Amino acid sequence: MENIETYREKVNSLLKSFLNKKLEKNRGVSPYINNLIENLTEYTLRGGKRIRPLTTIFAYKCFKDDNKIIDVSLSLELMQSYLLIHDDIMDKSNLRRGLPTIHKLYEKEFNPHLSLSAAILAGDLCSSYIYDIILESKFSPKEKIEAIKYISWILEREILGQTMDVLPNFKELTEKDIWKLYELKTATYTMQGPIYIGSILANAPEEKIKKLQEYAYNIGIAFQLHDDVNGIFGNTKETGKPNDSDAKEGKKTLLITKTLELCSKEEKEFIFKNWGTKEISSKDLETIKKIIKNSGAFEYCQKKVNELIEKGKSSIKNIELRQEGKTYLLEMADYIKNLY
Amino acid sequence: MENIETYREKVNSLLKSFLNKKLEKNRGVSPYINNLIENLTEYTLRGGKRIRPLTTIFAYKCFKDDNKIIDVSLSLELMQSYLLIHDDIMDKSNLRRGLPTIHKLYEKEFNPHLSLSAAILAGDLCSSYIYDIILESKFSPKEKIEAIKYISWILEREILGQTMDVLPNFKELTEKDIWKLYELKTATYTMQGPIYIGSILANAPEEKIKKLQEYAYNIGIAFQLHDDVNGIFGNTKETGKPNDSDAKEGKKTLLITKTLELCSKEEKEFIFKNWGTKEISSKDLETIKKIIKNSGAFEYCQKKVNELIEKGKSSIKNIELRQEGKTYLLEMADYIKNLY
Repeated sequence: MENIETYREKVNSLLKSFLNKKLEKNRGVSPYINNLIENLTEYTLRGGKRIRPLTTIFAYKCFKDDNKIIDVSLSLELMQSYLLIHDDIMDKSNLRRGLPTIHKLYEKEFNPHLSLSAAILAGDLCSSYIYDIILESKFSPKEKIEAIKYISWILEREILGQTMDVLPNFKELTEKDIWKLYELKTATYTMQGPIYIGSILANAPEEKIKKLQEYAYNIGIAFQLHDDVNGIFGNTKETGKPNDSDAKEGKKTLLITKTLELCSKEEKEFIFKNWGTKEISSKDLETIKKIIKNSGAFEYCQKKVNELIEKGKSSIKNIELRQEGKTYLLEMADYIKNLY
Repeated sequence: MENIETYREKVNSLLKSFLNKKLEKNRGVSPYINNLIENLTEYTLRGGKRIRPLTTIFAYKCFKDDNKIIDVSLSLELMQSYLLIHDDIMDKSNLRRGLPTIHKLYEKEFNPHLSLSAAILAGDLCSSYIYDIILESKFSPKEKIEAIKYISWILEREILGQTMDVLPNFKELTEKDIWKLYELKTATYTMQGPIYIGSILANAPEEKIKKLQEYAYNIGIAFQLHDDVNGIFGNTKETGKPNDSDAKEGKKTLLITKTLELCSKEEKEFIFKNWGTKEISSKDLETIKKIIKNSGAFEYCQKKVNELIEKGKSSIKNIELRQEGKTYLLEMADYIKNLY
């Protein structure tokens, strides 16, 4: 898929020029404002696979050949920055894409509370930019309103999903809760929303949008499920992430919820005692991994990932779509198992 | 102004039904989601003068008689909730309108960090609601896009203003900085934005919008300046706020910046030592108040408030506007001196 790289570079270069324009517009008002926009720019551009803008672009490309959608697709990446900056605060993360999170960047100069305040503001500022992108695009007012409707739909669901992720203890959640969490927090935001925006702006017929949404739901859930399995069983050299961070933060995953449903009473107590413990030893982590495997939860989740991917692909395999878009979506579905 | 109360009640009742619909839509998903929406609803409805929706409504009423604008005006009150919830976190405030702030509400059940996370999410959720209100209104797509353009304009400026308010030390700011801060943080958000949205949705002619904006800028700055003077010199029984909180938090006000410009070197050092000190004594506060008065800064700010109000009123006094709207705006200009 040679042209993916071309689109990704285009997205990056447009993001850069949008953010630089914001900086220029406000230059000279206050060094603190400059600095906020500069930090936000660096954070947004420092890496990232641009999955959401690319999905938006290729959903559009399933129906239309022009490039009007590229401008709009940036809004999905600015949404990503906004949500990640606030997530970093909530998760007390020090690093994002290998570099300091926004609140950590500010801690070089300010106390932790002021740094956290600056990070809240950087996220809030970025959230206002999402709409600017759509307002400035070349679509008609009616089409812009449709796009904004889905932006608002994504944000509402993602924030409610994040609420379910942050507040309850992992012990409280059932498998049904986890599926809802995956739907709200990941599927909507990573796949369904971008695909709605791309296909609706391409004026796609309703029945094809419905099929694309079936694809998006299944692949979106598979994406999160794979990420959760990979987070603990992945090769840390490949993933670039420590494999004990989910355990330390007591992450709510289907893997754990399913294990708790299937394992023995003693094993359950062991997980209750250790999952979500900051100082979990590598020995205890290995024990948990063994419990997960022995319970059948690991196999269950692996199987689910494959089923969801196949189900997602079958939703669009037999419908007529422009080849460029269809190829991307089908290859993307398989590719998520290589993502980390 | 008998009908102000009628509009205020209408705004309150529509806000209540909008938020209740959000609660109903999500009922049964998770008790944590219920709770977040319930807290946001209670926080939004627990009081407040509804100045921003009312200003939007009466700016529209300067040109048109119908009530289509009322729905849209709610977006300004949801914006207020969003920004206040995040401000409360940054200011570490325990109380808002006499009751616990959102993060304080959560502290009854969760640790401070989780409570702060919930408050960030409540603000973020509320921010997505701003757009829903406009999308659901009865205006055309083109008009909705105009309204959203100004929503985005207000938010960008307000957040940059808040950045100037939160990060620098009061010692660093010049009078010019303070005026910019007042413009970004208050005038745009409290007066200019609401008046843009009301008058543009009423299809007002450009030259009248320009005059209304002159009004809005001057009254908006006067509003903040009066609030700052009142914050330290106001009668605490009337204002309902302690008169040492600005001093304790080292608030950036024209009063202080002007005093530092005019007072003696010894007085300046006294202010540097005490403004922004959590444990400032009432004796030291009285000394600061005396320095402010003796320097001429108190009189300067009082005079500015009156000048700005007169200037604001004169911008609209001689232009033709519907009486209902014009009367409100003129009375509002005088009324701000009674606000606290």
